[in-house]
Amino acid sequence: MSSMNNFALDAAIKEAWRYQFLTYPNPAVGAAVIVKNRLFVSAHKKAGEPHAEVNALWEAYKAFFDAPPLTISHEIHEFLIKNHNGFFRESNVFVTLEPCSHVGKTPSCANLLKHLKPKSVTIGWLDPISEHSGGVEMLKSAGIEVNVLNDKRCYDLIEPFIKWTNDKFIFFKLAQSFNGAITGGYISSESSLKWVHQIRDKIELLVIGGNTVRIDRPTLDARKVNGKSPDVLIYSKEKNFDKTIPLFSIPKRRVFIEDNLEKINDYKFIMIEGGERLYKKLKNFVDWKVFIVTPKIFDRINYKSEDEFEILHVERRDDLIVFGRSND
Amino acid sequence: MSSMNNFALDAAIKEAWRYQFLTYPNPAVGAAVIVKNRLFVSAHKKAGEPHAEVNALWEAYKAFFDAPPLTISHEIHEFLIKNHNGFFRESNVFVTLEPCSHVGKTPSCANLLKHLKPKSVTIGWLDPISEHSGGVEMLKSAGIEVNVLNDKRCYDLIEPFIKWTNDKFIFFKLAQSFNGAITGGYISSESSLKWVHQIRDKIELLVIGGNTVRIDRPTLDARKVNGKSPDVLIYSKEKNFDKTIPLFSIPKRRVFIEDNLEKINDYKFIMIEGGERLYKKLKNFVDWKVFIVTPKIFDRINYKSEDEFEILHVERRDDLIVFGRSND
Ligand SMILES: [Zn+2]
Ligand SMILES: [Zn+2]
Repeated sequence: MSSMNNFALDAAIKEAWRYQFLTYPNPAVGAAVIVKNRLFVSAHKKAGEPHAEVNALWEAYKAFFDAPPLTISHEIHEFLIKNHNGFFRESNVFVTLEPCSHVGKTPSCANLLKHLKPKSVTIGWLDPISEHSGGVEMLKSAGIEVNVLNDKRCYDLIEPFIKWTNDKFIFFKLAQSFNGAITGGYISSESSLKWVHQIRDKIELLVIGGNTVRIDRPTLDARKVNGKSPDVLIYSKEKNFDKTIPLFSIPKRRVFIEDNLEKINDYKFIMIEGGERLYKKLKNFVDWKVFIVTPKIFDRINYKSEDEFEILHVERRDDLIVFGRSND
Repeated sequence: MSSMNNFALDAAIKEAWRYQFLTYPNPAVGAAVIVKNRLFVSAHKKAGEPHAEVNALWEAYKAFFDAPPLTISHEIHEFLIKNHNGFFRESNVFVTLEPCSHVGKTPSCANLLKHLKPKSVTIGWLDPISEHSGGVEMLKSAGIEVNVLNDKRCYDLIEPFIKWTNDKFIFFKLAQSFNGAITGGYISSESSLKWVHQIRDKIELLVIGGNTVRIDRPTLDARKVNGKSPDVLIYSKEKNFDKTIPLFSIPKRRVFIEDNLEKINDYKFIMIEGGERLYKKLKNFVDWKVFIVTPKIFDRINYKSEDEFEILHVERRDDLIVFGRSND
């Protein structure tokens, strides 16, 4: 089954990556529905908002019927259960992660699907949290054909979730020109900078090198998206910093200045923003690396290291955002 | 209409890129068919072989019915016209390029679709060759709903075709580490090297710098795919080369050693393989740039230039293959 070309699942995976990290503390999940020969694709976008399959089913429903402008998950569940009228009976549903069986902040997706009764549900990866699983059995007991693919790409999508749920997830973010030049912060496009602020709004701790703080005098907040500011760990041997550097003036933020990374253990979702020096030091310490690569070639020297990584995903925005996993 | 999310067209575009350049002298085209709630995606793979929509329709048909193992385009056309039995009546077809109306090496796809009569045909871009167009009218006159999107991504796919049909198409190929280090040729993965040989089998002229020839002593053939070897233009002020360098010993190959690029005008499909020196010189001369980017960071210096480009597509293989268009 996993050798089949599941182009609908491909589309769901791609859509899920658009919201990678932004669903914290939830996993990144995508879904697709083929109904009446039309393909609808969506993703889970933010904790508290509808799950991926609900978004995709709702998109599909709205394309064919008048529907109230619902956005709250349990309202959409309720509405679809009452009004589906067999609409999804011939549909095929694809989800990168097993539909949830438990009732949490949002109602159970497996229960919703049980009512809508699509012809088949194709699942990319089983839910790794044992008390969340059981979705497959619920669907099967409703007579729905269920295909479980064990598609490694669907595991990759939720690896951060697995790590921050069990312990912590740490990634290194590095911005570079196409030929490997890096500087303080004016390399990336405006849309990438905004994306970094979206991420900062989600992470709990931002690790940064002492030199960058001294030279760039950054704020390290999420003002471009009106987001919250993460705590900051300045990783530095030299403990003396000019406290008028804006990052020290963010209300409620905790700032640590340490020559070790022990503070990281108090957090679950950690981003390291750095350049060559920090990359060399931490390249084997982090779970993932995220490169923001601008399609420009500069007449400037590159950062250097000796390192390779597995590319998990490339997101095309104005810049390329390359998600990589450290090779162990 | 172009603001709609056409995920099926997205899949067709992605599939077409896998065969970019390999369809020479034909355009790169992708197609998708949604039928009986299943999505089938394919592409035109090689001149003389079936067009994209034929491949996609045939994949779909074979998934539901026993069918003989046909591969020749006019046999598939004939078989489908005789045996479709209304199977595609409720289907939706997506093609990145207007289905051809003329009979060339392969029969007309618009004619095939006229017989199969899908519910709708969504077209990404109209055929730029006036004597090939007319597909839309043929489909409409058969009562098929036709949507023309003018999706710029579908234009990008065929830009090489437009250029080599009207005059010539030139692209620069550069292999680099993730941090911009370049060397003779051992940077890329084996699958990228094979892809380069597939490309060499299609291009007519390969331009290369004199230094590279002297240092690497290359063969510049397509032996990894048993392909034909392109002619070679060594771009060099110094005309004296050791003729035991293997590239000089390929039968039927013409080799030019020139300090100018005039010879390029005798060819339609030209690849420049080079490093920093040639890139700096020709970055504004070429139509496209193709970067093979290995997910490795080296402790070596980068190439440098001042240049930016528009990313058209990123193909994920073992390496990333980044297709870019020079910014004018
Ligand atoms: Zn759910
Ligand atoms: Zn055709």
